[in-house]
Amino acid sequence: MKKNILDYETVRLNDEHDCIEIIDQTRLPDDIKILKLSTQEDIRDAISRLAVRGAPAIGITGAFALYLASKEISYSRTHNEVPGSMEVANDEGYSDEDIIKEFFLQLSDAREYINLSRPTAVDLSWALNRTYEAAVKANDNFTGDYIGDRLDYIVNGIKEAACAIYDNNIEMCRKIGEHALTLVKDGDSLLTHCNAGKLATVKYGTATSVMYLGKEKGYNFKIYCDETRPLLQGSRLTAFELSSAGMDVTLACDNMSASLMKDGKIDAVFVGCDRVAANGDTANKIGTLLLAIAAKRYNIPFYVCAPSSTIDFASETGNDIVIEQRDIEEVTSMWFKKPMAPEDINVYNPAFDVTDADLITAIITENGIAYAPFEENLKKLAEG
Amino acid sequence: MKKNILDYETVRLNDEHDCIEIIDQTRLPDDIKILKLSTQEDIRDAISRLAVRGAPAIGITGAFALYLASKEISYSRTHNEVPGSMEVANDEGYSDEDIIKEFFLQLSDAREYINLSRPTAVDLSWALNRTYEAAVKANDNFTGDYIGDRLDYIVNGIKEAACAIYDNNIEMCRKIGEHALTLVKDGDSLLTHCNAGKLATVKYGTATSVMYLGKEKGYNFKIYCDETRPLLQGSRLTAFELSSAGMDVTLACDNMSASLMKDGKIDAVFVGCDRVAANGDTANKIGTLLLAIAAKRYNIPFYVCAPSSTIDFASETGNDIVIEQRDIEEVTSMWFKKPMAPEDINVYNPAFDVTDADLITAIITENGIAYAPFEENLKKLAEG
Repeated sequence: MKKNILDYETVRLNDEHDCIEIIDQTRLPDDIKILKLSTQEDIRDAISRLAVRGAPAIGITGAFALYLASKEISYSRTHNEVPGSMEVANDEGYSDEDIIKEFFLQLSDAREYINLSRPTAVDLSWALNRTYEAAVKANDNFTGDYIGDRLDYIVNGIKEAACAIYDNNIEMCRKIGEHALTLVKDGDSLLTHCNAGKLATVKYGTATSVMYLGKEKGYNFKIYCDETRPLLQGSRLTAFELSSAGMDVTLACDNMSASLMKDGKIDAVFVGCDRVAANGDTANKIGTLLLAIAAKRYNIPFYVCAPSSTIDFASETGNDIVIEQRDIEEVTSMWFKKPMAPEDINVYNPAFDVTDADLITAIITENGIAYAPFEENLKKLAEG
Repeated sequence: MKKNILDYETVRLNDEHDCIEIIDQTRLPDDIKILKLSTQEDIRDAISRLAVRGAPAIGITGAFALYLASKEISYSRTHNEVPGSMEVANDEGYSDEDIIKEFFLQLSDAREYINLSRPTAVDLSWALNRTYEAAVKANDNFTGDYIGDRLDYIVNGIKEAACAIYDNNIEMCRKIGEHALTLVKDGDSLLTHCNAGKLATVKYGTATSVMYLGKEKGYNFKIYCDETRPLLQGSRLTAFELSSAGMDVTLACDNMSASLMKDGKIDAVFVGCDRVAANGDTANKIGTLLLAIAAKRYNIPFYVCAPSSTIDFASETGNDIVIEQRDIEEVTSMWFKKPMAPEDINVYNPAFDVTDADLITAIITENGIAYAPFEENLKKLAEG
């Protein structure tokens, strides 16, 4: 029987078995396989070879990884397995403070180690720092006497922080989807680009949240997915996850969207985003701008689904957003049976483009929907 | 040393060695290899497996093929190799008329045989018919006495017709390029889509003619090529032929064009076309419409290079042009190391789209440049 993505979580903590379970995204779109990551090496490897990807999913994996690391460090401290464990400490005259210092030293090393799996992923370092700070805070707040209790308290603080990131992500995605659902109706045809889906988060995704929640309500959407060159996240991931969830999905090449729109086949476009500037200019996967321009011509609403954490009030406009240029092999050869372009050809391969605010119908955050003028209305949303 | 495409012709007749020489396009972008096609089987095979492709190049190959066939039929008739040859005819009481009838029967069979290599290619059947009709006309016009001379005269008529198609194609492309050159200047950045290049014609191409002629003049253009999913003609063919000719070429995915335009990197867009309706609506490779919409937003001139034979006054608007839907494997698997989309996914895969006339700055034919209103100005050009 065909597996349904709804029966799996992109990433979850299996606390009982001291591991993180992820959908192995390197196996997609062939099969849904759950990978159990027990060691820090496993986790770092999984992140770096994109077995788990998507900014929020990576962040959550990192947070759980730091929790597992803290458990292990604490366990070894209390079970006399390493020099500096409590019994040894007693013998060798280590103070409780020495043990805590050593604990944080090792926790900090673990944080560094995991962070290096995707050094440029902002969500990963953010989640690791947030979890680490929870440990510091727990240590500060502990009022008991025994070092064993103190370590337990700290480890528990890390777990709570990691689980909060996880819970908040599900909640944030759900809320974006609920707001987005007010903008569409049963039977609509929705187009999306790249993967701002469940596979990039825990559940629902951002751009796809409206689709999952609509399905829960019994809506029948017709979904179109751009394949999203060069990395093909649209075909490998989005088309996979939505069709696996039982939706009516059609895949198209990126250059076909205007043709779909012109033929009246698209009612609305939903995309995710990497960063939104204060004026509403939105950086997202390369190709988003082109899609927005086409949507404007055919009067099709173009919605950006943006967790409020992606709104960067420090960037006045999209011009302040630096666009990463990526390896040329992504375009010329990496997916192909043989090289598909002449050797030594120049390649333009930006990861993102910036969609001008005037092309965006609305920006949907977990706190509500912002319409133009975005400068004003994004601030209002942020201030609640 | 790196081979230069300018040293080769896409297709040429080698009359001395009774063969057609083509650049084997299945070997691109790896290497330029010349394939010598001697038998009708070779030719049909080369056309059907796309070793030669592009409507004009296929047409010319077909015309040369019919000439080679006529030579062979005539030779066998005059060299006693088959029943019905002249010597046999003399013995068996065949009249000259019987021999001519048999010649045309076999020529007609050859036409059918070659035509079946790409049954939907209009240029192929057009070129075959035109060449065949030249044979009929030559037979009608022959005023001599001897059957051998008559056959020679017919075969020569076919050769002249085939060579005229070849010559006219070069001339047509050159003229389109000359007109296009008046619209650009040295140093310009030009974007093109798909392959309306030398490899689709004999020399110059249509959309690329301005680039080749500019290079002859010493202009330094910066050329951007869309890779053109799903068949990747832009990366495999256009990026190859232009860079092989020594131009400064950069390859980009189809979804990157708006980003290039927004960054001020494109001065003009040149594309080919499959058919132009009377009102200027233009059917061309899928993705052309999207490109034209983006060019409009950024006020970048968008030029369609259209041999006058592609202007179809019988089609009032683009709505009259039927768009071919192609195999889903082109999108999901055929180029890839492994399937890049879920099994059984629906795929939208039109071969072409129609670019609305309001998005087109000018249509460049061999007879001159037409601006809006196209309805009026295309007719004027056609009437000379």
